[in-house]
Amino acid sequence: MIKVGIVGGTGYTGVELLRLLAPHPHVELTAITSRKEDGMPVADMFPSLRGRVSLAFSTPEKARLTECDVVFFATPHGVAMAQAPALLAAGVKIIDLAADFRLQDPALFEKWYAMPHSCPDILKEAVYGLPEINREAIKRARVIGLPGCYPTSMQLGYAPLLAQGKPMVNEAALIADCKSGVSGAGRKAEVGGLLAEAADNFKAYAVNGHRHLPETIQGLEAIAGRQIGLTFVPHLVPMIRGIHSTLYATILPEARDTDFQALYEHHFRDDFFVDVMPAGSHPETRSVRASNMLRIAVHRPGGGDLLVILVVEDNLVKGAAGQGVQCMNILFGLDETAGLMHIPVMP
Amino acid sequence: MIKVGIVGGTGYTGVELLRLLAPHPHVELTAITSRKEDGMPVADMFPSLRGRVSLAFSTPEKARLTECDVVFFATPHGVAMAQAPALLAAGVKIIDLAADFRLQDPALFEKWYAMPHSCPDILKEAVYGLPEINREAIKRARVIGLPGCYPTSMQLGYAPLLAQGKPMVNEAALIADCKSGVSGAGRKAEVGGLLAEAADNFKAYAVNGHRHLPETIQGLEAIAGRQIGLTFVPHLVPMIRGIHSTLYATILPEARDTDFQALYEHHFRDDFFVDVMPAGSHPETRSVRASNMLRIAVHRPGGGDLLVILVVEDNLVKGAAGQGVQCMNILFGLDETAGLMHIPVMP
Amino acid sequence: MIKVGIVGGTGYTGVELLRLLAPHPHVELTAITSRKEDGMPVADMFPSLRGRVSLAFSTPEKARLTECDVVFFATPHGVAMAQAPALLAAGVKIIDLAADFRLQDPALFEKWYAMPHSCPDILKEAVYGLPEINREAIKRARVIGLPGCYPTSMQLGYAPLLAQGKPMVNEAALIADCKSGVSGAGRKAEVGGLLAEAADNFKAYAVNGHRHLPETIQGLEAIAGRQIGLTFVPHLVPMIRGIHSTLYATILPEARDTDFQALYEHHFRDDFFVDVMPAGSHPETRSVRASNMLRIAVHRPGGGDLLVILVVEDNLVKGAAGQGVQCMNILFGLDETAGLMHIPVMP
Amino acid sequence: MIKVGIVGGTGYTGVELLRLLAPHPHVELTAITSRKEDGMPVADMFPSLRGRVSLAFSTPEKARLTECDVVFFATPHGVAMAQAPALLAAGVKIIDLAADFRLQDPALFEKWYAMPHSCPDILKEAVYGLPEINREAIKRARVIGLPGCYPTSMQLGYAPLLAQGKPMVNEAALIADCKSGVSGAGRKAEVGGLLAEAADNFKAYAVNGHRHLPETIQGLEAIAGRQIGLTFVPHLVPMIRGIHSTLYATILPEARDTDFQALYEHHFRDDFFVDVMPAGSHPETRSVRASNMLRIAVHRPGGGDLLVILVVEDNLVKGAAGQGVQCMNILFGLDETAGLMHIPVMP
Repeated sequence: MIKVGIVGGTGYTGVELLRLLAPHPHVELTAITSRKEDGMPVADMFPSLRGRVSLAFSTPEKARLTECDVVFFATPHGVAMAQAPALLAAGVKIIDLAADFRLQDPALFEKWYAMPHSCPDILKEAVYGLPEINREAIKRARVIGLPGCYPTSMQLGYAPLLAQGKPMVNEAALIADCKSGVSGAGRKAEVGGLLAEAADNFKAYAVNGHRHLPETIQGLEAIAGRQIGLTFVPHLVPMIRGIHSTLYATILPEARDTDFQALYEHHFRDDFFVDVMPAGSHPETRSVRASNMLRIAVHRPGGGDLLVILVVEDNLVKGAAGQGVQCMNILFGLDETAGLMHIPVMP
Repeated sequence: MIKVGIVGGTGYTGVELLRLLAPHPHVELTAITSRKEDGMPVADMFPSLRGRVSLAFSTPEKARLTECDVVFFATPHGVAMAQAPALLAAGVKIIDLAADFRLQDPALFEKWYAMPHSCPDILKEAVYGLPEINREAIKRARVIGLPGCYPTSMQLGYAPLLAQGKPMVNEAALIADCKSGVSGAGRKAEVGGLLAEAADNFKAYAVNGHRHLPETIQGLEAIAGRQIGLTFVPHLVPMIRGIHSTLYATILPEARDTDFQALYEHHFRDDFFVDVMPAGSHPETRSVRASNMLRIAVHRPGGGDLLVILVVEDNLVKGAAGQGVQCMNILFGLDETAGLMHIPVMP
Repeated sequence: MIKVGIVGGTGYTGVELLRLLAPHPHVELTAITSRKEDGMPVADMFPSLRGRVSLAFSTPEKARLTECDVVFFATPHGVAMAQAPALLAAGVKIIDLAADFRLQDPALFEKWYAMPHSCPDILKEAVYGLPEINREAIKRARVIGLPGCYPTSMQLGYAPLLAQGKPMVNEAALIADCKSGVSGAGRKAEVGGLLAEAADNFKAYAVNGHRHLPETIQGLEAIAGRQIGLTFVPHLVPMIRGIHSTLYATILPEARDTDFQALYEHHFRDDFFVDVMPAGSHPETRSVRASNMLRIAVHRPGGGDLLVILVVEDNLVKGAAGQGVQCMNILFGLDETAGLMHIPVMP
Repeated sequence: MIKVGIVGGTGYTGVELLRLLAPHPHVELTAITSRKEDGMPVADMFPSLRGRVSLAFSTPEKARLTECDVVFFATPHGVAMAQAPALLAAGVKIIDLAADFRLQDPALFEKWYAMPHSCPDILKEAVYGLPEINREAIKRARVIGLPGCYPTSMQLGYAPLLAQGKPMVNEAALIADCKSGVSGAGRKAEVGGLLAEAADNFKAYAVNGHRHLPETIQGLEAIAGRQIGLTFVPHLVPMIRGIHSTLYATILPEARDTDFQALYEHHFRDDFFVDVMPAGSHPETRSVRASNMLRIAVHRPGGGDLLVILVVEDNLVKGAAGQGVQCMNILFGLDETAGLMHIPVMP
């Protein structure tokens, strides 16, 4: 059994990790920390876990995380990098759901997250935890920085187009119009997230710059091996879970004869959690609700030169906790799908 | 024109007052206070008011409320009673949407609101602002304490039964099972009100005691002129606006032959904002959305001895701001419906 | 492996059965029928099942249901009783999610469902599939009539009070104020169920008589061994899944000293799927979402004589498909929790 | 008083017309037709109108529409063109909320609506009812074809860019990523519109071709006086009302120095119902809920060459019934805002 610790289990990605890890056949949950809730049984805060998780929150001091095999950080940005050196020294693997180990360039991290990076050396060896792109590197990682929820959908959605030897689309002018359920904002007391504010409403936000932009550009450039240009416009949907990314790319004249449907199907043929739907499909976010699946449909409206790629995922699963468990499975040599075979909840 | 000031316009009842008062034909909005937002145009906080309300928030000091004819308090409990003496001394009428002037007994106020009442003398003369019950007293009031949202629905729902010379139902064992949209909790940053927490969910709360209980009992006893006993169970509905109260009362043997439908229709025959629906109806909260209407249906399932009264209102209109405007209309000798003829928004 | 057939898999209880049964460790899904969708892969209608269910719908004729060990009916009322004789003759067990085998009295069935019962003999031997009440009988059943969604919550909520040797509450005047998500109405094209009609709205319906009333009275009387009287008022909540029943019962003078919390905990001490929460709790429907759990909290507001029992369940799981699988497990001697250990999805 | 008839008042645009027209100061509602609901009081179908609309539905025969000054068609496509000749002959003005008089080319109409156009002569004189573009023509119209809900937002959103003497953006490659609430699909009994299907869900639809595409291209080309190319991707949002269109356009090198904020503000300086918000704004659909306002914000992320225009409207008001009333006001020489000064309902 893999001994797992969770730092910061009071947010949505934390409780989602518990939902996935508690019944995981190869995991023993050994500690969950929250300085503020020290002593409180996890199931008192989250009654959905009554009878299934007997752990109580404890302070990091009491939690003896160094005895774990792997520690997940479901914390605000900055926490994982503070605790990483000690854990690594003790031989503990780290999987961070926050942004500490996503951006390879410490200066870029500092620019977007308004704090200096405290351990650039560890950052250098950190592996970006997107299994469908980085599976081999994940196997050997000590520190995994999990992608953000939006970046997962954008990178997997564009990957087959960019991963070719030469450009197929105008890579300087990609447009990602993305829509997320409100759980993406986390379990934070903020007026903007109230049901009375966010329900029966729709809006864009952060049009002039969102933290997931530099991360996605870094990822897309790594896939392409070329510079890319991306406009990313996030929107807030009055729903709890789910991301729907509508991706636009202009086909280059030399690629007009490509069978893009076949290209996508071939690209993901060995990726269990990526489902390329039949041509003409319109994936719905609920078709992946509470599961680790990501579904993609490829459109070329009117047979023209604009590709429209539709991508759906559950932001808390494939976009966060599920992807973390998937990486853990790979890291420890388990079947990649272990503990992740949930059928989406529909309706 | 009536010069109107609003203290505390940054919450839901405040912005609803603005929606109703800005186009009111006899009102001139002269001041709106918020210490925290001093100088900010109201329409910057609430874009729905762009082009319609040109006021900016100002501190109470700058707002010169003593020059108003009437001041509405859309504030937390305790604010209105602190400012009431000075306003009354200046001849300003007061309409309080909070609880400062609801409970006639200062000890009861202190028990439920955990603060002493600072002006019990003013409290003594305050009028409970439920026009369908207290219309005459409202005409002559200097201070009006508006009912809470739940209490409005419960009192109007039970009134025809209790307002008779002798009891028709078991007045010692009334049960009110009430359901409210989330705007009733106000525009406060709290985890429990997040869309990700409250959507696709239903729960009861405060089963062992809610502040609207003593107020409702006081009101029902005033209507009946007798002691009554009430169990009140509030629930939270994943919707923005609306209250649905399901009221139960056991018919006494001597009242079994009553035509309750006729009783209700007769009782409210002169009340424009109370609509007694045809027998067998199931009023929906959306049938009063964004309007000052309250609709009632009377049921007697299986012809038995239990009456089931269904009551719907918009908690922010008839349950708060609209009722305040209705009281203002009465207070200043206007038509009771002035500025309140909004047709409900459906769908 | 148990060979399972499903008749009528195109509705919500049908797709929920598939979600639960496809990964069930002891089940082999062998047939699913729909005359209308003959030949269509199930996963084409429900993309949530892509890659997980490879069956296609077929006509009953092709489906060879007589080769199954058990057949679930997720059909409109009347279908199961038509096919029951042939299946029983072939030695197939039947679990009906509709109402054909709920009401023991054929006359009562005809009154509420407007059709004569076609096989009263089979009805006579049918077992009411509520494991926490009928576990022993279920073990030996050939035909199981599963309870309706509301009746499950009402019966389990009242059971500890009624199952005593003598009455503890006024059993002639029980009141059940119940609230259900819209999936309870099924996957039927009806204007009233449209999001534009049902969202941001709340209403009661069928106050003068709902089909779940006679079934619940029959069940409660079986538990008590005495006549009972019940008023049942259903309401529609703008959410997808979940039932919240608020149950009222007046404590008899001789039972005033009872520790009701202890009574409930003791009563359900051996029932895995019933969770009696700590005193003072307010269970939320989302705390059981997509799981087979049912949670109960016992309240006595103000220490008075009225008990208020709060019950939550997922109407499609414990209120339908999950309960069916639980009965199947019992029927075939499996662990009662096999394939039903889903942790509720929260948020 | 203008005598107004409504054909087809049982859908969402019909009931919205009633909400707007019943209190309109210059309108007398004289007839509303529905063959199916002949004799039923409108307020029985829509309780929100109780006490405010006393009309009953009647058959077209009884309705004496030829005595009206203007008739609104809130009907399926094809109805208005069938009745138009007789009404015009009687001197009645026609405002059609369906598509009969939108597409100037009868062949295009037939292609997208699968029926021949029955009165191409009338079509030739019909005026496209978008006041901010066509105000002068509307004044003199006999027949007005109101724009669709999506096309209104796209045309007004792109108009300032296209209405210049020479191109400012790449007009061959416009992208409109649009999101609509579910009331846009109408009050039709369809499984896809059920709350249990559409809530907590997000999806694109009709990516390969939507009826609003040819209409929008026709309108944009009329504004520009040049050919344009548009990709239009509609999405369904789990909310009742509202459209949010995110419009993309690539700035041409020669237009890089344009102050687009000033361009938009200037363009709409005389249009009461179009609100160009301050630079950096993110308009929300609820900021226009139940009102005739349309709000626009202009973004240029990172100062690059891609313009992102955000547009919100209420699909049932500015996108349908409100726009119809606005056209009626213009047609009859009234103030354009008569009966349309509703402040948006927020929250």
